[in-house]
Amino acid sequence: MPELRKDPVLGRWVIIATDRAKRPASLVHSAPQNPIDENNPFLPGNESETPGEVLAYRPTGTKPNTPGWWVRVIPNKFPALDSSGEMIRRGEGMYDMMNGVGRHEVVVESPDPTKQLPDMDEEQVQEVIWAYRDRSVDLKRDPRFRYIQVFKNYGIQSGASFWHPHSQIIALPIVPSAVQEEIWGAKRYYEYKERNVYLDIIHQEQRDKVRVIMENDQFISFCPYASRFPFEMQIMLKERQQQFSDINKSSVTDLAEILKGSLKKLKTSLNDPAYNMIIRTTPEDESRSPYCHWRIEILPSLSRVAGFEWGSGFFINPVPPEVAAETLRNAELPKPEKNQETLKAKLIRESKEQTEKLKKKT
Amino acid sequence: MPELRKDPVLGRWVIIATDRAKRPASLVHSAPQNPIDENNPFLPGNESETPGEVLAYRPTGTKPNTPGWWVRVIPNKFPALDSSGEMIRRGEGMYDMMNGVGRHEVVVESPDPTKQLPDMDEEQVQEVIWAYRDRSVDLKRDPRFRYIQVFKNYGIQSGASFWHPHSQIIALPIVPSAVQEEIWGAKRYYEYKERNVYLDIIHQEQRDKVRVIMENDQFISFCPYASRFPFEMQIMLKERQQQFSDINKSSVTDLAEILKGSLKKLKTSLNDPAYNMIIRTTPEDESRSPYCHWRIEILPSLSRVAGFEWGSGFFINPVPPEVAAETLRNAELPKPEKNQETLKAKLIRESKEQTEKLKKKT
Repeated sequence: MPELRKDPVLGRWVIIATDRAKRPASLVHSAPQNPIDENNPFLPGNESETPGEVLAYRPTGTKPNTPGWWVRVIPNKFPALDSSGEMIRRGEGMYDMMNGVGRHEVVVESPDPTKQLPDMDEEQVQEVIWAYRDRSVDLKRDPRFRYIQVFKNYGIQSGASFWHPHSQIIALPIVPSAVQEEIWGAKRYYEYKERNVYLDIIHQEQRDKVRVIMENDQFISFCPYASRFPFEMQIMLKERQQQFSDINKSSVTDLAEILKGSLKKLKTSLNDPAYNMIIRTTPEDESRSPYCHWRIEILPSLSRVAGFEWGSGFFINPVPPEVAAETLRNAELPKPEKNQETLKAKLIRESKEQTEKLKKKT
Repeated sequence: MPELRKDPVLGRWVIIATDRAKRPASLVHSAPQNPIDENNPFLPGNESETPGEVLAYRPTGTKPNTPGWWVRVIPNKFPALDSSGEMIRRGEGMYDMMNGVGRHEVVVESPDPTKQLPDMDEEQVQEVIWAYRDRSVDLKRDPRFRYIQVFKNYGIQSGASFWHPHSQIIALPIVPSAVQEEIWGAKRYYEYKERNVYLDIIHQEQRDKVRVIMENDQFISFCPYASRFPFEMQIMLKERQQQFSDINKSSVTDLAEILKGSLKKLKTSLNDPAYNMIIRTTPEDESRSPYCHWRIEILPSLSRVAGFEWGSGFFINPVPPEVAAETLRNAELPKPEKNQETLKAKLIRESKEQTEKLKKKT
């Protein structure tokens, strides 16, 4: 079972995979698998190659772990944390450790191995967001888990090991120190100003305009004032909502538009760069705190983190966010096609077509 | 002039290089320059290609910015911070910023473009440590600077842009939040236990033995209990010393042995991996605090930092530090050659030979 170990100075926890003590050779990062390789375990028809699904959006009447789904969530075959077992904390001399209890799941975003978020139908992006939400709600019910982290690694530079469109969810038994520090910061601001810092940021960005990328009724995307990375983006709901899992139907529609649009602009402006996407939500303990607010961070992998950054936690960003935002804002989006079909009908048809196509190939 | 900008939630500062608003194309990281390329600006004979030296160890009688040196420190040609100008802090709406005042220097570790720290003569490693120390002492005198960061990026994966052996020094006008958090952690421990946490770590490591790599009279190197990265290493002086710049002669000798040895073991065990090396010292304000202690961190670049790590600050390490330490401990070091020459004589001879060789080539 993996171990959680705590740094005795910083209080920072790390996951140590004690089980699979890797040999140095296996540390070399291999290129992600070709998505149209027939062994790609995320392809429709290969459902038996993965652990059984924990959630799938599929036509009623179709069986679990068979083709037909348009979004599918499965346990990670090589989880960073172990979903069984009790939470045991103990000391090891002066050090603190804990059993590596948690969940690690993979969200297969589409049966189509080649269409990524910026090129998917907007309604498919909505379905992906619903999957993030449904799994978050379910995982929150387990009293062992204190933080649900939804994230996506896209491209080799970002650490992805598959090209097939997918995201990941990790449920953690503790609130990570990075999340806790952010809460403390938001709380300090609230105590002083009696205002939510995130909503103040949104108002500031709306006034300054220079860092805004896109905006619709409910959401805004912008390059943060103190961006650590070139072309770093942030997406925020314009009304306070502590937990991502409380998102409602009309917000999902608006978020899908902003998320797809912002990623499309990133792809167009920078020749499809690798990136990490992170949903920073509020832990259960703080779910009613007036100073909290969930948000999405998108961190393109354009520069390398080097000694100075590791030493000081102090990042050097060669591209001012105002320059990045201007580039992104001016990147044109293709006009949406008018679609007469209803969402479900279309998804089901596409999913079936996809499955048929793949069956013929084999 | 570069700007320092503060994240309004986390209080984390970033350096935004507002002057050289880079175009996306220039963000692509190019491979480091071939060290034996005659245009390598760090080669003896090319002194005029760099800004004038701020420190050089060279035979008395030789002129500054001419060959003959065995260690040479120069201002970075493309500094992250600007050494001239006043420190001005101001608000921009709700945000805080500051002029990017600081120093950014390059330590050219050797006239030989191909010999890196693990393969240098131990006496040459001592000279490099002296250069770190001498520059730290000098930069500390400038009242604008509150933290001196010595670091080294080795290899492409670590963000290095030259192969020629070199390190960097950045003097910052503020104490980075990562350093401040570590001080708070050390202080909390001290208040509770009335002991220095770093010395307690050393005792724990000496007792457990499983994570120790090397030890001599004054220093110990080990893989930290909560290592974030595979084969992460830490080097500590066994007696409390807050600031690296207070290192004395006998400590330099012992540190050179441990540093060279640990890096050699890393090189041998993992086929010469890229790494970042960081000297974490204590800021001037805390230079007498009983809970502080300087140390060296070595972070091999074997795995990629991905969305989960960026989101949670929570690292997944696939190699337990006990396994890494065993591998490193067992890596054999070549026997040191007996050397009859005195240090200075030898360095001067080698430096001259090197210069002659390079002159003949051109």
